[in-house]
Amino acid sequence: MSRFSLNQASIKYATVPEAIAATVGSGIPAIGLWREPVGEFGLEASAAAVRDAGLRVSSLCRAGFFTVPEGPARRASLDDNRRAIEETAALGAPTLVLVAGGLPEGSRDLVGARERVRDAIGELEPHALAAGVSLAIEALHPMYVTDRAVVSTLGQALDLAEQFDARAVGVVVDTFHVFWDPAVLPTIARAAGRIASYQVCDWNMPIAADPLLSRGYPGDGFIDFESITRAVVDAGYEGDIECEIFNQEIWDTDYATVAATTMARYRERIEPHL
Amino acid sequence: MSRFSLNQASIKYATVPEAIAATVGSGIPAIGLWREPVGEFGLEASAAAVRDAGLRVSSLCRAGFFTVPEGPARRASLDDNRRAIEETAALGAPTLVLVAGGLPEGSRDLVGARERVRDAIGELEPHALAAGVSLAIEALHPMYVTDRAVVSTLGQALDLAEQFDARAVGVVVDTFHVFWDPAVLPTIARAAGRIASYQVCDWNMPIAADPLLSRGYPGDGFIDFESITRAVVDAGYEGDIECEIFNQEIWDTDYATVAATTMARYRERIEPHL
Repeated sequence: MSRFSLNQASIKYATVPEAIAATVGSGIPAIGLWREPVGEFGLEASAAAVRDAGLRVSSLCRAGFFTVPEGPARRASLDDNRRAIEETAALGAPTLVLVAGGLPEGSRDLVGARERVRDAIGELEPHALAAGVSLAIEALHPMYVTDRAVVSTLGQALDLAEQFDARAVGVVVDTFHVFWDPAVLPTIARAAGRIASYQVCDWNMPIAADPLLSRGYPGDGFIDFESITRAVVDAGYEGDIECEIFNQEIWDTDYATVAATTMARYRERIEPHL
Repeated sequence: MSRFSLNQASIKYATVPEAIAATVGSGIPAIGLWREPVGEFGLEASAAAVRDAGLRVSSLCRAGFFTVPEGPARRASLDDNRRAIEETAALGAPTLVLVAGGLPEGSRDLVGARERVRDAIGELEPHALAAGVSLAIEALHPMYVTDRAVVSTLGQALDLAEQFDARAVGVVVDTFHVFWDPAVLPTIARAAGRIASYQVCDWNMPIAADPLLSRGYPGDGFIDFESITRAVVDAGYEGDIECEIFNQEIWDTDYATVAATTMARYRERIEPHL
């Protein structure tokens, strides 16, 4: 039974039914859903559709974005995070991915923003426990530190997660975001029992003009998937392995081709190391 | 007496005499030179010109690029590094900046490339000691890990440097490359006695289409220069502070304006924290 999951972001323009069709059509047993298309198709309809298709939902992307100081914007963000926890449970997914958010407008205070991330996760922990959902803190590549995620390394994500109940708060290992880190392998080992999601995609070069879209199919770039995958396995992770690619060319490709290609690359580049 | 130094890369197209004129013209007491323009003007002529102008030479940029496996290319690189050490001494500069280099062609083995960096520095250590030159290992931002520098964090640079004599091997603290790091302040503290160069420039957003050129004048971007500068001071660094900016718009500005602007920004953003 394959552990592969197609993250819906790899076929960004697909509706939930289209994403399900592409996933099932390529023999992929699981899907990682995104809140926006789920919201468009309807939460209950999406939950029913994946259930009827026989798919596991490996994760829901994404919540977080809680670096702003106390005030209405922060309260709105935390309310939205609680809704996202409920959505994750309703979809039968074990994991909600959290992206911390960047610096608040006009701020240069990374230390303060990082403290507010910790505080926000502390507020969400009881809701996650009650819902049976694992919050997965995702470290994003340091090039996104100011505008997208002040959590920049797997070690930092783990330092945060370890302050909370392991049933409620874990970390994402995303190859694109962490492969460069000289400490990546020992840090994955240290993450044993905290890895809530393993995502694979490659680091393409040169970096795309929009640096968000610089990801590639596993094998197209510079990442050594063997060492990272073995470390994740050795750390005891037994969940699904998602392929999440932000890449305009791939987004412009028909969904079935993308699904089939990700599945083929998974078999070639990841599965041999499990 | 100001500790400010204009790194020649901020006025990339200037010859050595033009760079000296712009530096002196703005009342800047030191300059960071680059090997290419020094080579064009001549090593001895350059040394005489800075001496006659009464400028300190804060560093020479740059050598390194020694991640390739054993063979003629590696020998050529190490020979070139030894020449760079001699050039640094001839210019009266205390420091030679080392950029490690990226992955060798076709390789995905960051671990191996990083081992070869350590081995190369080990070969160079006696030459640096003999010449009275400090090799300054520069961690580059992780977005350059595959194509430019497999040394990606200040902690990693320090782990390397600490294997060698502190008179011969130190580290660069470059704000652009390290500000994002959750561990940057404690790591600067740990670098006490090993900081061979402090370079300041800002992190502009969005990232430039050529990510090498995404740097800005201090104050134009997102870096908190106060906390980093205070940490560098607290770690006992007493040397010059260079402004090194790679930015096409700044390169297209006349040299005197760039020199005056860097000096003004240094006074405004850096000097108050010394």
